[in-house]
Amino acid sequence: MRAPRAVSSRAPPGGDAPRLRLRMRVMQGDAIAVGPGKIALLEALQRARSINGAAKLLGMSYRRAWLLIDELNAALREPAVRSATGGVHGGGSELTAFGEELIRLYRGIEQGAQRACADDIARLLAMIEPP
Amino acid sequence: MRAPRAVSSRAPPGGDAPRLRLRMRVMQGDAIAVGPGKIALLEALQRARSINGAAKLLGMSYRRAWLLIDELNAALREPAVRSATGGVHGGGSELTAFGEELIRLYRGIEQGAQRACADDIARLLAMIEPP
Repeated sequence: MRAPRAVSSRAPPGGDAPRLRLRMRVMQGDAIAVGPGKIALLEALQRARSINGAAKLLGMSYRRAWLLIDELNAALREPAVRSATGGVHGGGSELTAFGEELIRLYRGIEQGAQRACADDIARLLAMIEPP
Repeated sequence: MRAPRAVSSRAPPGGDAPRLRLRMRVMQGDAIAVGPGKIALLEALQRARSINGAAKLLGMSYRRAWLLIDELNAALREPAVRSATGGVHGGGSELTAFGEELIRLYRGIEQGAQRACADDIARLLAMIEPP
């Protein structure tokens, strides 16, 4: 089952090896309440501390970023993002403790899942022909 | 953090509760070698024992099912599906042992991941407003 992997000498080591992509979404009825896009946006906001800056980091329009955050806040029991007070531009935005916890849980589950299933994931990847 | 869930009396119990959707894909370069669609197709083929029957089970054209299986077989170290010999219609198709193992590993990882992270998943779901 686990034949030795033939590594092409052209490929950077491990660069093109088959890999697992795990995508988690929290569904609320038919809508995606939380998914990889919204989590990436929260993480960008954590760094940029403004919706405009976060949108730029992700190559997204301000309008789209604003709508995603508005949708996310509405889907949660408590908002993940709030306006920061003060500052010359009226303040920017920041994550709430609830928003930080949301990222922590989401990323923790992704990593925990891969760690818990590492052996079976390696077996699954070993069934794929290298590209 | 984990406020008691307010259950709407209109909703069927648990029917509309926020839920986690986990999607796993094995990437081979930029292409999806194995994903939920191909695994569902293999499972349908396991039941129907022909590509045509599997396609019908999934509401998919024969041509699309055939192409997906061809693509999957090419991406794997060994084929997941082979023609079955004999039978009045020239045989139909069946899973190989390799194909059965692929389903077993894929579904096992999905279930193992959810089991291993059950507590954090419950915490994440509890952050979402019921619809």
